[in-house]
Amino acid sequence: MPNISERGKMMPPSPIRKLVPYAEEAKKKGRIVYHLNIGQPDIKTPEVALNAIRQYDEKVIEYSHSAGLESYRRGLAQYYQSIGIDVNYDEIIVTTGGSEALVFALMTTMNKGDEIIIPEPFYTNYNSFALLSEVKVVPITSDIKNGFALPEVAEFEKKITDRTKAILVCNPSNPTGALYSQEELYKIRDLALKYNLFIIADEVYREFCYDGHKHLSVMQLEGMQQNAVLIDSTSKRYSECGTRIGCFVTKNKELLSSAMKYAQARLSPPLLGQIAGEASLNTPKSYFEEVYNEYIARRDYVVEALNKIEGVFCPMPKGAFYTIISLPVENAEEYCQWLLEEYHYNNQTVMLAPAAGFYSTKGLGVNQARIAYVLKIDDLKNAVKVIEESLKVYPGRTIK
Amino acid sequence: MPNISERGKMMPPSPIRKLVPYAEEAKKKGRIVYHLNIGQPDIKTPEVALNAIRQYDEKVIEYSHSAGLESYRRGLAQYYQSIGIDVNYDEIIVTTGGSEALVFALMTTMNKGDEIIIPEPFYTNYNSFALLSEVKVVPITSDIKNGFALPEVAEFEKKITDRTKAILVCNPSNPTGALYSQEELYKIRDLALKYNLFIIADEVYREFCYDGHKHLSVMQLEGMQQNAVLIDSTSKRYSECGTRIGCFVTKNKELLSSAMKYAQARLSPPLLGQIAGEASLNTPKSYFEEVYNEYIARRDYVVEALNKIEGVFCPMPKGAFYTIISLPVENAEEYCQWLLEEYHYNNQTVMLAPAAGFYSTKGLGVNQARIAYVLKIDDLKNAVKVIEESLKVYPGRTIK
Repeated sequence: MPNISERGKMMPPSPIRKLVPYAEEAKKKGRIVYHLNIGQPDIKTPEVALNAIRQYDEKVIEYSHSAGLESYRRGLAQYYQSIGIDVNYDEIIVTTGGSEALVFALMTTMNKGDEIIIPEPFYTNYNSFALLSEVKVVPITSDIKNGFALPEVAEFEKKITDRTKAILVCNPSNPTGALYSQEELYKIRDLALKYNLFIIADEVYREFCYDGHKHLSVMQLEGMQQNAVLIDSTSKRYSECGTRIGCFVTKNKELLSSAMKYAQARLSPPLLGQIAGEASLNTPKSYFEEVYNEYIARRDYVVEALNKIEGVFCPMPKGAFYTIISLPVENAEEYCQWLLEEYHYNNQTVMLAPAAGFYSTKGLGVNQARIAYVLKIDDLKNAVKVIEESLKVYPGRTIK
Repeated sequence: MPNISERGKMMPPSPIRKLVPYAEEAKKKGRIVYHLNIGQPDIKTPEVALNAIRQYDEKVIEYSHSAGLESYRRGLAQYYQSIGIDVNYDEIIVTTGGSEALVFALMTTMNKGDEIIIPEPFYTNYNSFALLSEVKVVPITSDIKNGFALPEVAEFEKKITDRTKAILVCNPSNPTGALYSQEELYKIRDLALKYNLFIIADEVYREFCYDGHKHLSVMQLEGMQQNAVLIDSTSKRYSECGTRIGCFVTKNKELLSSAMKYAQARLSPPLLGQIAGEASLNTPKSYFEEVYNEYIARRDYVVEALNKIEGVFCPMPKGAFYTIISLPVENAEEYCQWLLEEYHYNNQTVMLAPAAGFYSTKGLGVNQARIAYVLKIDDLKNAVKVIEESLKVYPGRTIK
């Protein structure tokens, strides 16, 4: 039998993959499992997007331009202009989800062996994309105690070497819900300019900023035109994850032209998803207000209720729809598995994402879990009750 | 300004990219340009696929399973069974086009620096995917004189080193239209087994085999269960290139589980494309008969007409809808550019794909061009007339 590749063996499995069979087993036993572990919102896709698909009237589902439909790119540019981001349509490459935009960014800004600094905990697939493109992730740890604020610039500066080519930020952040302030962003801008680094900013949760906090894009940082790469996606903004449409945006022409060659190699982003995406640009304001109010209500409920549980700490997220909580347990992964395998409260249980998988530094986050508040409030209430009751009896709890 | 990556700079541009601006210029001058350069068929997508999209009635366009919708994978397995390929649904990973399946195959079968043997001329993006995954392409030249038949096994064997991990075949072949015989395939099977190699077979043109020739899949070669990887796509079979749906198929469980980690990293293949793909499985036989007859007629016309032109040689393709022709010119790329930039016949001209870009060995194919016979016969007639007349006056012709 031929050997498979070592790099394939080294690819990290999804951090919840180990738990999936336990969740399936629990369901087979007839238990209700509340999924707080995934970023698949239950929010409806805008009607304008669904209608555009239903009214598709071409005879052939053709390739689009490798950079995406020109009409869609022009629409995207208008959208960015409308929120104060100065971008032309020919500075946008439509991609197969934000995922592909990230791969393009790593392949074009970095050679293999180069280093990218990423505040941890971070979206676990950054690790997969870094492995795929053979770049080294250099983590900087952010702290649950201050709501996972961007670490001090001095911490970044300590990590910079000859091989450092870029800093990757997710703003607002999956998995922490942190939203970086203008002050924080200008500080890393200065650092990027000082050391000639790219800042790759994953801003797919841009629309989800709460309490009057304003989102500042990397593309809005003065003087960063040649250093900024924006990663975007329609998945969360319009709750249309299945369209697999994102984009890679930069004003750096050389970088754009390099990314374009990767785009040409895979011919075209998905056409039907682009049609949904283009129509979504006309989503009425009322849709976002409704979604926004729903997430605010969910967040406020879940944060308050979790913090009332003895030994649980949940920072107040300023954006996205995630938060990382610390739990009074020795090992959150074991606790999450136990919830699915052994525990139920009134025949209900909960699936959480153990947070260790979001850290690059071994040993961190072992008593933390990520919560996605993507369920209706009534379900969230039941889920929090399960967590509360379970911690009273969990054998591995640290508070006796 | 930060430096972009060297690997990005090294990525080959599309072989027709240089010609695109000339084609656009020609159109601006009001000329009709017949596109024989691209594989975008004008054939209609099956009604069943278009209707499935139009009848989409879910409220949320969600992620699918990372391996694709289970119902679609079960349908695909049935399709494969029906054509004599023994595959279960859980041996299939639905991908974003055949392109992604190829990347998964290279990443999982080979480490960086490993070698893959590919008969040339080959689909030019194999080069891009090899660069992306840092594997070395070792070409074996096939010959226009015998219709680009698979080279002798002894030629393959000469190229095998310690780093050789796989052989990649495209069958039927884009860009040559060659279809490999049972005898040829069994010979490279024996070689693969002898040296413990994978055979990665790109079979996306499986349905396009002419003159009673039967397609044999790599999955049907006895004893190859652990060594075979099938790359497939719905793009050409159902003329739905824009759906971006393909698949990665293997019975090698270790390889499958490795590929699955790459699939999880990008979350999900496009949902809407999968819905079109699943519905396409019910395409009536009459559709394929019509398409088949249309391509046969186009092929027969174009091959006969081209061979009548003095100095042109066009082998008879047995499959797909491409052929590579040799031209009585010193440099086909210059000729192709001249056709767009300077020549017209009754205000019409032609865009061809210079074939040098399909060879990995420098200096080969310089007097060859690839033709995709994806246009209606009337257009093909006009296009051939342009080629015929142009060669009478082209300054760089070799036959005076």
